[in-house]
Amino acid sequence: MTPTFGCIIDKLTAGIARPDGTVDKLEPGCLETKVQGIVTAFSASQYVIEQAIALGANLIITHEGVFFSHQDHREWLMHDPVYKQKADLIAGSGLGIYRFHDYLHRYTPDGIIEGLLRALDWQKYVSSHQPSASILTMPAMKVAEVAEYLKRQLQIPYLRAAGSLSTSCRRVGILVGYRGSGATVIPLFEQESLDLIIAGEGPEWETPEYIRDAAHQGREKALIMLGHAESEAPGMSYLAERLSSQFPQLPVHFVKDQPVFQIV
Amino acid sequence: MTPTFGCIIDKLTAGIARPDGTVDKLEPGCLETKVQGIVTAFSASQYVIEQAIALGANLIITHEGVFFSHQDHREWLMHDPVYKQKADLIAGSGLGIYRFHDYLHRYTPDGIIEGLLRALDWQKYVSSHQPSASILTMPAMKVAEVAEYLKRQLQIPYLRAAGSLSTSCRRVGILVGYRGSGATVIPLFEQESLDLIIAGEGPEWETPEYIRDAAHQGREKALIMLGHAESEAPGMSYLAERLSSQFPQLPVHFVKDQPVFQIV
Repeated sequence: MTPTFGCIIDKLTAGIARPDGTVDKLEPGCLETKVQGIVTAFSASQYVIEQAIALGANLIITHEGVFFSHQDHREWLMHDPVYKQKADLIAGSGLGIYRFHDYLHRYTPDGIIEGLLRALDWQKYVSSHQPSASILTMPAMKVAEVAEYLKRQLQIPYLRAAGSLSTSCRRVGILVGYRGSGATVIPLFEQESLDLIIAGEGPEWETPEYIRDAAHQGREKALIMLGHAESEAPGMSYLAERLSSQFPQLPVHFVKDQPVFQIV
Repeated sequence: MTPTFGCIIDKLTAGIARPDGTVDKLEPGCLETKVQGIVTAFSASQYVIEQAIALGANLIITHEGVFFSHQDHREWLMHDPVYKQKADLIAGSGLGIYRFHDYLHRYTPDGIIEGLLRALDWQKYVSSHQPSASILTMPAMKVAEVAEYLKRQLQIPYLRAAGSLSTSCRRVGILVGYRGSGATVIPLFEQESLDLIIAGEGPEWETPEYIRDAAHQGREKALIMLGHAESEAPGMSYLAERLSSQFPQLPVHFVKDQPVFQIV
């Protein structure tokens, strides 16, 4: 029997208490619609929506918001032509879009981190999973070697690194998305005796400035920022694999966007 | 007569109403201490503090917080060795440190934006100053040309750009620091008919994703992220020039840090 949108969402959220104030929602879309195909993506960008239509999918599962806002505020977009063209495309397409953010981060382990660790083949190094970070104990590598490995495995063209590239790393913390803030990251260095933290994104005047000072004091601590999308897209790719095995009768595709920034 | 710390701070804040909940403060330091020399900086990093001591300055004027936090939260740093070494250096040095953030952003025009515009020699192109952005009308340039000009004038090794580098720009918005958020930036494109926004830093899933969609729709809109420090350091450099002319008897130095990230 062909599953409905509601059936997919029930499967995705099964066993997880509704997160307080969750941003996760099906909009647009009806729970009763039968699924023709699914596209998962970091962000339901204009490109991703066009790809979903071309692939004959009628459900997009997106990690980040469709309209450039975590809380889906739109009042400042009502007269914006980019917004209007995208909203019209969605409305005319009959696509359902499910924002799948908070529930996925509450998987055990976090579904986004798990996808990243699998893409890196680093599950074998996990010492512990904390609610917002995974702690790894790895064979010693220099930061420069870690950076090259990350770029190769994740197929990303560049990374931002703070601290010395020659720092030797065995104890590594990984945090995805916007978890790179000072309050989240800095205490981990001491609590977990970390040499390196790999994060998605965070304020530049917090953790990076701490690492700058640590390095200037001669301490072996370093930070790699993957980029927000680069840290979370592998989790949405892994989600497509999971859905494929849970619903083998359905076509499920992960659609990857180009990096949002280029370095000039 | 040698001015005191209090005299400098009175000059810096003259005519500006105390900003609500301001983070600006002299800590450590006494208003009555006589100034031997001043260092201005984007951030009072370990390197900047050492330079101030080497230069014989006893007052650092820093734009961002000393301990990796806008609100100066420190409870999570108490056992951190990087924090302790830096705090001990400051305590033993006799340095005063004045955080000068909110007042400077309330200058007319914003003192940080004014420094950036001067460094770019772009004051002549200003159409209007808004509270958090300046709007420029410039001779038409491609984004790639603007990027090269920014790198050369500001002596920065790289920029992050979204949208097409061949976009032609005449109407340009400039926002410094962490003003790159979607709610702040996106409405400016329509309200001010902008082709390009140059900002410091902001969440990657907001404005950059908007620009990605705009470019994919074939619209000529682009975004350049300078980096938080890169966008605000010129304002602190210009502040050193102002102080030098206001207090010609005092040695005043701007100390520039290396970029906090390198691209790998």
